[in-house]
Amino acid sequence: MRLTRYFLPTLKDTPREAEIVSHRLMLRAGMIQQASAGIYSWLPLGFTVMKKIEQIVREEQNRAGWNEVLMPTIQSADFWKESGRYDDYGKEMLRIKDRHDRDMLYGPTNEELITDIFRTHVRSYKELPGRLYHIQWKFRDEVRPRFGVMRGREFLMKDAYSFDIDFESARKSYNRQFVAYLRTFDRMGLKAIPMAADSGPIGGDLSHEFIILADTGESEVFCHKDWMTTDAVPETIDYEGDLQPIVDACTARYAATDEKHDPATCPIAAEDLVHTRGIEVGHIFYFGTKYSKSLGAKIALPDGTEDFVQMGSYGVGVSRLVAGIIEASNDDNGIIWPEAVAPFKVGIVNLKVGDAACDAAADALYDSFTNAGVEVLLDDTDTRAGAKLANMDLIGLPWQVVVGPRGIATNVVEVKNRKTGEKHEMSPEQALSKLTA
Amino acid sequence: MRLTRYFLPTLKDTPREAEIVSHRLMLRAGMIQQASAGIYSWLPLGFTVMKKIEQIVREEQNRAGWNEVLMPTIQSADFWKESGRYDDYGKEMLRIKDRHDRDMLYGPTNEELITDIFRTHVRSYKELPGRLYHIQWKFRDEVRPRFGVMRGREFLMKDAYSFDIDFESARKSYNRQFVAYLRTFDRMGLKAIPMAADSGPIGGDLSHEFIILADTGESEVFCHKDWMTTDAVPETIDYEGDLQPIVDACTARYAATDEKHDPATCPIAAEDLVHTRGIEVGHIFYFGTKYSKSLGAKIALPDGTEDFVQMGSYGVGVSRLVAGIIEASNDDNGIIWPEAVAPFKVGIVNLKVGDAACDAAADALYDSFTNAGVEVLLDDTDTRAGAKLANMDLIGLPWQVVVGPRGIATNVVEVKNRKTGEKHEMSPEQALSKLTA
Repeated sequence: MRLTRYFLPTLKDTPREAEIVSHRLMLRAGMIQQASAGIYSWLPLGFTVMKKIEQIVREEQNRAGWNEVLMPTIQSADFWKESGRYDDYGKEMLRIKDRHDRDMLYGPTNEELITDIFRTHVRSYKELPGRLYHIQWKFRDEVRPRFGVMRGREFLMKDAYSFDIDFESARKSYNRQFVAYLRTFDRMGLKAIPMAADSGPIGGDLSHEFIILADTGESEVFCHKDWMTTDAVPETIDYEGDLQPIVDACTARYAATDEKHDPATCPIAAEDLVHTRGIEVGHIFYFGTKYSKSLGAKIALPDGTEDFVQMGSYGVGVSRLVAGIIEASNDDNGIIWPEAVAPFKVGIVNLKVGDAACDAAADALYDSFTNAGVEVLLDDTDTRAGAKLANMDLIGLPWQVVVGPRGIATNVVEVKNRKTGEKHEMSPEQALSKLTA
Repeated sequence: MRLTRYFLPTLKDTPREAEIVSHRLMLRAGMIQQASAGIYSWLPLGFTVMKKIEQIVREEQNRAGWNEVLMPTIQSADFWKESGRYDDYGKEMLRIKDRHDRDMLYGPTNEELITDIFRTHVRSYKELPGRLYHIQWKFRDEVRPRFGVMRGREFLMKDAYSFDIDFESARKSYNRQFVAYLRTFDRMGLKAIPMAADSGPIGGDLSHEFIILADTGESEVFCHKDWMTTDAVPETIDYEGDLQPIVDACTARYAATDEKHDPATCPIAAEDLVHTRGIEVGHIFYFGTKYSKSLGAKIALPDGTEDFVQMGSYGVGVSRLVAGIIEASNDDNGIIWPEAVAPFKVGIVNLKVGDAACDAAADALYDSFTNAGVEVLLDDTDTRAGAKLANMDLIGLPWQVVVGPRGIATNVVEVKNRKTGEKHEMSPEQALSKLTA
């Protein structure tokens, strides 16, 4: 993409309303714009990052064996009256009357609707397990929305659901999601730690929050130092196999937020304890027959009897992760995108647009990266050099290739790693080969 | 995908509530499920088709030079009060009060919000043209929603917007979208005809509807027979070049819906006239300064003065197209997907699950197609053969490979083209080579 054809309205000044670093940087980098309180438009740079995160979430859900569906944003209140949550949910639920005066709502979550889909079509244990997810916008009418997309009112969430014949099968579905979450966050360059959680308003017996580490995170986190060096779950993991050992290894390793951590009873030695901060980005629940009972989702069992189906639900905050990743990865100059979610892998800065040699070299590099399938942003604007370099740092692309008149006279460009700050001079050909490897 | 791991709740009986063929087939093929009146959940098969359509729309918008953003579904009523449309829009607009009693609404379109983004960031002609689009759910509270997703209340739409310095530039943006639409629908296997249109409630001076031909379409269409044989616009089209000749050639060729067609004044000979039916799937508008004036979107001009920016908007009904394509392509046995939007290219039917030779051959074919990057659905259920074949016809995958015990004894499978009905016996190796070519 050429910057002259890209809508990237970066800001020089730090917006006053932004209280946390990710909100400040998302506004400054032209990623989002507030449409109304707690509701944002995603501008091209922010949109692209969100889509990359969404795609990683999708791939790992598919790999774990879930089928993607899409439920609507607007739901009939009838399902919620049936489950008993319509009155419980309080003012966070956006309640709506349609033109025929029917009670509708903007879904804050989808247990009711997915259970209705299940009970309509599935009647026998033979069709289990049922594993469906969707990635859809939700609305929670927070009394005081703030922190940008970290706690917005309209937000994008992946919510998966499982339907199983008994606890043992439900546990297998739970374990699959547990492992899929480890892989999902790891692929985004995040250190995510599952922590035993209270099940909250959705209810249930078995529940973990996934918290990503970030110095500026909302929660205090205490965990065993081994968490800092745990290996990723490989792509080759067999989801049909026994995942319990992986889950057991995780749950055996100490981790707790400050709400649960008590120095007096902490089971590990002080020298093994890491004290840091984090942000909740996922939450998984097993809640048994809570919704299948209230909504009447029964299945025929092998012995000819019927029983309520066992359910779980599994959420990831997709739009929240955009901010979460920034909280986990930034410096004084701006965002530092992990490569897997970067809007572009490479930014080319043409320091002197209009200079024939610079233009030719920058354009040639741009074409070569594009043809090699590398996502690249070329700053071909006629802004001054310092502003261009600052802007490129701000938007945080993993690699910068700087083309200037002095260097290009001897066929040299500068390649900078945004994360380490390391700069190396090399020929354009070497830059191309280094960054397409 | 193996059918035993796929949620495909096909129906044997035709649902009574469905009045048109696409609605009947989408319900029968397990593509959608009604969540409430005019609001649908998209089940895996329907979701996949919608995503393929969305992706084609996206690629052609990007190619034409538009940047993708995402505006929220819930908007503040303030923008609509500013533009003057809040009172005009009537009961089709879903109006909402949030917890602080502020007037909100579920966006039926986005002229106001995109103009707000533009006026916030763009002040100079130097930053023009502005070309932004998004693909987002909309809500129109139809008094009597029907025809399934063809006229639903919650629907997915691509809406693009252009901001230009003057009429000539705005016309170039309009022409780009005009050509992008020709390409978009052509890629989906549709014959789409642009027709001069009244500009409707959005208002404007220059406007075309794009109507796809379908025998069961909602509108009568009269057009020159040359439309039946017009060539596609090639992928190599240069959007920076002069597109006016393409647009002129289209607008010169007669086409009108029955509202505008008058046999008495029709400019072409009766023998050149084709009388058929169609479905509106796109609408493009140039409307000048209608919104920039009411919302105060001014730009600085080269001569130092200021003026209101010239705008256009360009819509495609993405979820509606799923039904539109079915209306255009079906037979008594079910859907016939054009390959570009098919949920899977190939369906393998294992006629005798449990038979070692059939299982081995079907699995081997499945693995080979998958490894070759061909999207394939394997019916590995233990349903009876007749039901499997009928189901495969119903869901309309372009190619079927039928593996049966008699054939496989001599290394023969049957390859069927869903559209033509042609069947050929060949070895699994030949089937693979034919369908991966």
